[in-house]
Amino acid sequence: MLMTFRAGFVVFLVFVATHAHAQSWTPPTDAQRCPSKWGAADQRGAGNHMKPETVLRATRLIRTGEVFELGRVLRSNMPFSSGRRFQMETKRTNMNAGSNRRGSNEEIVFSEIGQVGTQFDGFTHQTIGDSLYNCVKLDDVATRTGFTKLGMEHVGSLITRGVLIDVAALKGVPMLGDTYPITEADLQQALQRQKLTLQPGDAVIINTGWGRLWDTDAPRYLASNPGLTIGAAQWLAKQDPMLIGSDNGPIGVTPEPEPNLSLPVHQIALVVHGIHLLENLKLDELAGKQIYEFALIVQPLKIQGGTGSTVAPTAVR
Amino acid sequence: MLMTFRAGFVVFLVFVATHAHAQSWTPPTDAQRCPSKWGAADQRGAGNHMKPETVLRATRLIRTGEVFELGRVLRSNMPFSSGRRFQMETKRTNMNAGSNRRGSNEEIVFSEIGQVGTQFDGFTHQTIGDSLYNCVKLDDVATRTGFTKLGMEHVGSLITRGVLIDVAALKGVPMLGDTYPITEADLQQALQRQKLTLQPGDAVIINTGWGRLWDTDAPRYLASNPGLTIGAAQWLAKQDPMLIGSDNGPIGVTPEPEPNLSLPVHQIALVVHGIHLLENLKLDELAGKQIYEFALIVQPLKIQGGTGSTVAPTAVR
Amino acid sequence: MLMTFRAGFVVFLVFVATHAHAQSWTPPTDAQRCPSKWGAADQRGAGNHMKPETVLRATRLIRTGEVFELGRVLRSNMPFSSGRRFQMETKRTNMNAGSNRRGSNEEIVFSEIGQVGTQFDGFTHQTIGDSLYNCVKLDDVATRTGFTKLGMEHVGSLITRGVLIDVAALKGVPMLGDTYPITEADLQQALQRQKLTLQPGDAVIINTGWGRLWDTDAPRYLASNPGLTIGAAQWLAKQDPMLIGSDNGPIGVTPEPEPNLSLPVHQIALVVHGIHLLENLKLDELAGKQIYEFALIVQPLKIQGGTGSTVAPTAVR
Amino acid sequence: MLMTFRAGFVVFLVFVATHAHAQSWTPPTDAQRCPSKWGAADQRGAGNHMKPETVLRATRLIRTGEVFELGRVLRSNMPFSSGRRFQMETKRTNMNAGSNRRGSNEEIVFSEIGQVGTQFDGFTHQTIGDSLYNCVKLDDVATRTGFTKLGMEHVGSLITRGVLIDVAALKGVPMLGDTYPITEADLQQALQRQKLTLQPGDAVIINTGWGRLWDTDAPRYLASNPGLTIGAAQWLAKQDPMLIGSDNGPIGVTPEPEPNLSLPVHQIALVVHGIHLLENLKLDELAGKQIYEFALIVQPLKIQGGTGSTVAPTAVR
Repeated sequence: MLMTFRAGFVVFLVFVATHAHAQSWTPPTDAQRCPSKWGAADQRGAGNHMKPETVLRATRLIRTGEVFELGRVLRSNMPFSSGRRFQMETKRTNMNAGSNRRGSNEEIVFSEIGQVGTQFDGFTHQTIGDSLYNCVKLDDVATRTGFTKLGMEHVGSLITRGVLIDVAALKGVPMLGDTYPITEADLQQALQRQKLTLQPGDAVIINTGWGRLWDTDAPRYLASNPGLTIGAAQWLAKQDPMLIGSDNGPIGVTPEPEPNLSLPVHQIALVVHGIHLLENLKLDELAGKQIYEFALIVQPLKIQGGTGSTVAPTAVR
Repeated sequence: MLMTFRAGFVVFLVFVATHAHAQSWTPPTDAQRCPSKWGAADQRGAGNHMKPETVLRATRLIRTGEVFELGRVLRSNMPFSSGRRFQMETKRTNMNAGSNRRGSNEEIVFSEIGQVGTQFDGFTHQTIGDSLYNCVKLDDVATRTGFTKLGMEHVGSLITRGVLIDVAALKGVPMLGDTYPITEADLQQALQRQKLTLQPGDAVIINTGWGRLWDTDAPRYLASNPGLTIGAAQWLAKQDPMLIGSDNGPIGVTPEPEPNLSLPVHQIALVVHGIHLLENLKLDELAGKQIYEFALIVQPLKIQGGTGSTVAPTAVR
Repeated sequence: MLMTFRAGFVVFLVFVATHAHAQSWTPPTDAQRCPSKWGAADQRGAGNHMKPETVLRATRLIRTGEVFELGRVLRSNMPFSSGRRFQMETKRTNMNAGSNRRGSNEEIVFSEIGQVGTQFDGFTHQTIGDSLYNCVKLDDVATRTGFTKLGMEHVGSLITRGVLIDVAALKGVPMLGDTYPITEADLQQALQRQKLTLQPGDAVIINTGWGRLWDTDAPRYLASNPGLTIGAAQWLAKQDPMLIGSDNGPIGVTPEPEPNLSLPVHQIALVVHGIHLLENLKLDELAGKQIYEFALIVQPLKIQGGTGSTVAPTAVR
Repeated sequence: MLMTFRAGFVVFLVFVATHAHAQSWTPPTDAQRCPSKWGAADQRGAGNHMKPETVLRATRLIRTGEVFELGRVLRSNMPFSSGRRFQMETKRTNMNAGSNRRGSNEEIVFSEIGQVGTQFDGFTHQTIGDSLYNCVKLDDVATRTGFTKLGMEHVGSLITRGVLIDVAALKGVPMLGDTYPITEADLQQALQRQKLTLQPGDAVIINTGWGRLWDTDAPRYLASNPGLTIGAAQWLAKQDPMLIGSDNGPIGVTPEPEPNLSLPVHQIALVVHGIHLLENLKLDELAGKQIYEFALIVQPLKIQGGTGSTVAPTAVR
């Protein structure tokens, strides 16, 4: 699609785009989206699905005891979004006094530890203007050392039924195209193919195959990615999941097809609906073995006032 | 045991202690302890207990779906061992281009992320002289940016039967004394009281009550702690657990009663037997509700070449 | 002075304060203070005084070749303003390949390197509302990794005539009182006593004696300090110096006598007049030897987009 | 000198080089090089040349008041030696309470601040085996947070006569070849051409022209560089300078022509003779204007226990 930034044309093109792709999207106003369905004082969003019944629903799926690691190794040369890093320096070995010659090692790490590697997004990560999830105002809660509301310490460990929606398999490819937009229809057809339905509180994990680039082609991994369209994200949000995950960073298709929008899927999930995101998952084993239903376990670090957490989630069946 | 630092008495008391408690300890030589029972090339130690049967043994204990958080909130003013810190600076909000006014937040963290808060110790954390677990030589594997063997990327997520041994409850106190040395007999009597026996592969968690100082008195929390004696640690190691945890940092009693030894329990577990340690656990809920058997789940970060990982473990029953 | 924040009284009390102490101060509006006398596009402020004549005026004062170090040692336990630190970890020694057995050492530092120790303030350090020196708007130039205008790379090394105004000596004390407010009259009397007059482009250094607490009593050093009143700062600004320095952090008296003002001297110097500040100087030798006129040399680090620089300035005579 | 990496030729060429240039070098033993000529307890090496006479000798060269900046801008994308970086995050603006609407900015920096950009090397930076300058033993002084002897706090600001030896001009080129080895003869001929002789205590600055790659071609800047041969460094050391500087990182030619040696010029200067190094200088202005004699001023940061310091030195004439 040809794009121009001359004002007169933008209006016209957006109009066309709206009709052709039905994707035009304006973030809901504060009045439209607040208070959250979880209550005006709520800080947990879809994390409120975490209840004993949810846990039991998940652990009843564990029949073989197999554990699948969905987390990436944290290394200084992994793919990073702009301006992020993971840097580690081994300290000198400290030989302690004592006849038992005990040496101690540890490392100092400098990293956006909430937003690198396989990562879990909290609600302070994204805004619509100056407004966070549940219409908490940025300036009311942002400090130099974290956020006084909605921080990662409110999330807790999550155990829930995980459903892998393998869109790559639906399309018969190991990996979707570089900017493939996953639609609501794709999700529904993939679920139908897998003979599964979603339930409120699920961890919905989308396999795009993009993760196979993580170790082999970081520049391409970061340059674009197949992912959810706005419509698909809105449909998913209606299914009321605990979290949405995928084997890429943005979850939404990148670049966003509508050029005047920046990563709207992040806003739809985190700001509008209070649904957590789980990014850069390693899904090759689950997809390869066609494991579509499992107990999803993730233990975000309780970073006080943090925007997210590096994690090492697992699928257990 | 009465302790004094007046020189004349120290000699006498050490002599008595040696004979009375038979605690004098010399680290085993490389020849005595290597190769590891898990094989000469092994890097996982007691982590090798992680098998589907182990997972099923644990998850069969999940009957109510209750999840107990055993991890502490990560904050810049929590108790730290000397020279460690957790420092976080919120970056400026990045307002992305686009009509949807998407603001992005993230934080930069500077921390010994492997060795702060509730933490999981890997095998590169401790040495006997220049020798690590399985007699890997420090100089062969230490680089400025991590260790080329025995790093945290080899550990994986752990799910196993957890057993809380409540020594404080055995003694009828909310918290053991500041330097109370937990003996083998204490552990056995506590297990007997709780009508439980240990099994190979268990996560053995010792409640000392010391954790109640975490939020209220950091200086005292760090100055000393009740914990395992050498004898108790050796007895535990013989029970072949996957990991040993407690509600203090050192696991071993601190200061070590034998003044010429520095934290021998760390060496016994990590270097001699390849048993992981899980430190600074929050155990008040488990102890308060007398939950002594549960599924213990911990997902250490896969820090390449790292010595440990901050974690947010859970007990599920 | 009794203070209240109930709105009705604030107006009354501010009025009273104005008349009693003649110190009430409102920051000048953008229209009142811009463009800077150095031009609308200027980024150097009083740094424009750096010209060959200025250098020669300074170096002609060098007669004995004695060098006095005015910089503090950078150490992790020096006095820090809130939220700042200087942390250093020595890297493991790297033994390079080669028959000459060359070992390399270096350290990684985590620090507000522009704003710790003996420090030089650039113009992005302070604002009046959303406006910097020369009415540059904060949001136009602030990025996550520095400022696109007014950064430290524009400052350059400074060599100019330094004049020590020893107010402590004027008052006959080794150290002024904890909240002693230095007035215009104090400065003028001290100069008269020292038989010196100020010239445009001078580095004006105020000795309060407060620096003797740097190594001995960090909490008191930070809790308050003798320093310039608003009136004294305004009089100094009129003398058109290149920079103003002192042996404390804030330069202005702390706490500010007018309780509704926060460190106005910083705004007067940096934002209104474009005069650099040089803080936490070590002045004991100069004061002890009554060296009041000298070549002042300071080489701020050229931190791109930075707000300031740790420095190690010298006085040479 | 023609260089090749084809195995057959290397042997031959090394043989020729050894005999033709007499460059084979073994580091002197501790007995041969200690105690230092500055005394067995000395920590300052050639910094001991800093005396009032030295300063006056330098400042007498100041006739026009022109200041030439020899320091590079510190930026995150400048050329770095392996494993080093300069990373900066602007903190959120802190709006202080008060009617004067004072906003504060500062940045957090993570960097090998002693060893990046234009940098000054201290004596703990390099070893011969386990031995530093004046045969201080590494294990006796190295801690996790710096060195207990020979740290940067002992250096002080330096002011001395600077002599630029323009080897590129001698050879009639703007920039010497990528691996051009500067010999003793080159230095002597360049001095003769410039009608200058060296004096004890000088800052000897070598212009190779390599600095023109700093801003334009970082990979080539780092891959190799023209620089001093062992013979040239030994001859310079005999002239007893305070420091040796150049417009490249290693000062010595890189790669070192003798393939079994790693950067011997660093050892000769720092470890054997206690002569400081000043690296990555910006020399284009001095060379372009043929300014060969000047006052060299450098103010290393007083990093306690540090191995070096980023600096912003100047030449003044």
